[in-house]
Amino acid sequence: MAQFTLYILENSWGLNPIKIGIFLEELGLDYELKGLELNSTDKEKGVKGENYLAISPNGRTPTLVDHKNNDFTVWESGAILQYLQNKYDTSNKYGSKSVEEQAIIDEWLFFQVTGHSPVQGNLYFAKNSWKKTYGEDPPQNVIARFSTELHRVLNVYEKQLEKQAQKNGDDNAWLALDHPTIADFSALAWFSILPLRAEVLEVDLAKYPFISKYIAHGTQRPSFEAVRKQIIFK
Amino acid sequence: MAQFTLYILENSWGLNPIKIGIFLEELGLDYELKGLELNSTDKEKGVKGENYLAISPNGRTPTLVDHKNNDFTVWESGAILQYLQNKYDTSNKYGSKSVEEQAIIDEWLFFQVTGHSPVQGNLYFAKNSWKKTYGEDPPQNVIARFSTELHRVLNVYEKQLEKQAQKNGDDNAWLALDHPTIADFSALAWFSILPLRAEVLEVDLAKYPFISKYIAHGTQRPSFEAVRKQIIFK
Repeated sequence: MAQFTLYILENSWGLNPIKIGIFLEELGLDYELKGLELNSTDKEKGVKGENYLAISPNGRTPTLVDHKNNDFTVWESGAILQYLQNKYDTSNKYGSKSVEEQAIIDEWLFFQVTGHSPVQGNLYFAKNSWKKTYGEDPPQNVIARFSTELHRVLNVYEKQLEKQAQKNGDDNAWLALDHPTIADFSALAWFSILPLRAEVLEVDLAKYPFISKYIAHGTQRPSFEAVRKQIIFK
Repeated sequence: MAQFTLYILENSWGLNPIKIGIFLEELGLDYELKGLELNSTDKEKGVKGENYLAISPNGRTPTLVDHKNNDFTVWESGAILQYLQNKYDTSNKYGSKSVEEQAIIDEWLFFQVTGHSPVQGNLYFAKNSWKKTYGEDPPQNVIARFSTELHRVLNVYEKQLEKQAQKNGDDNAWLALDHPTIADFSALAWFSILPLRAEVLEVDLAKYPFISKYIAHGTQRPSFEAVRKQIIFK
């Protein structure tokens, strides 16, 4: 039996669960994926079903169960990343040397989960799902609002990555420190989809050379490859 | 000179800066407020001005500067709360006894900043600011989307607070543990405005008895009173 069970949606990783898969791979920890049915209240299989809500009250993925720690369960991707860092990054490979360095990691992690993913998520929903959901074209100002904000956020990243490249060199231009941290695994999971969704999100990555280099460099890591190649069951 | 400078918007605390004010008060740490001009690129006073962006690259509030720690600067309310807990909750009054307890605090903290505030914020923007911004009434499905999600999120809180009341008693029905933590200061800051905005957000708090008790109980703490009574300059 694998040490961890990682709950995801069936047939699809989802961007937040990918963060956890990447970090588990980086730490060399073994895990089993379990897929849940989207929008379903089925007791056993539904993401809003009784069994899943009992361990993850928000009814979203990812949730991580640690079988070597009395089945301790954590949900919210940011909290899971911090749990794994605190508990299992024992050689401090991805960590910080001080409370201050940890605060730098955490500010970029919180920026990703609060400033970046809700905006990219809302824009993608408007462009991809609004019509299916509401039977009308997405209102133009909804797209304007989230598109403007996504570009503002991407510019914040772009400037930070440029600064980090000047400070640490191109190969160590990570978001927070001079080595990859949970802030990077969080950001890269959401960046990794940008080349695929560039058209629908109307993001021209050529305008963000440091983000482009960061995506190319970061997603070449074996952890990304290992996550990508896993065939999701049904 | 106070130990900390806390950057907020002028004339207004804002819900995220309130979290930090409350926790600084709880910890008995002294701070000075500095107000920035909204939407302004004024070099010295603007929230998007050169001076502020140099210490807080996302150009939002709050940002905290710690003058007793070489002017170490943290932004993102979640990261600031964690920094203050790690560095200054030396008697562990608001803290955790283990990595596992900390993970429980953190999952509710991340839930607040990712699941709750973007939704309440987007709904308030639609109802209060859409017309001023775009010169049209807010699209009905924008309100439907964020209103439905806000009620879903409030139900997650309601069930958790009920569970905590059964486990720890009414007086200790805090979100994560049996005592207040940074997850509570984060949630209570955003809850504290709900009674005032019940009409515009169309939230009937009578439908959420445990949240109502939690707001009444939590916001009676002296820390809230101290934050509320501060007259913002200008």
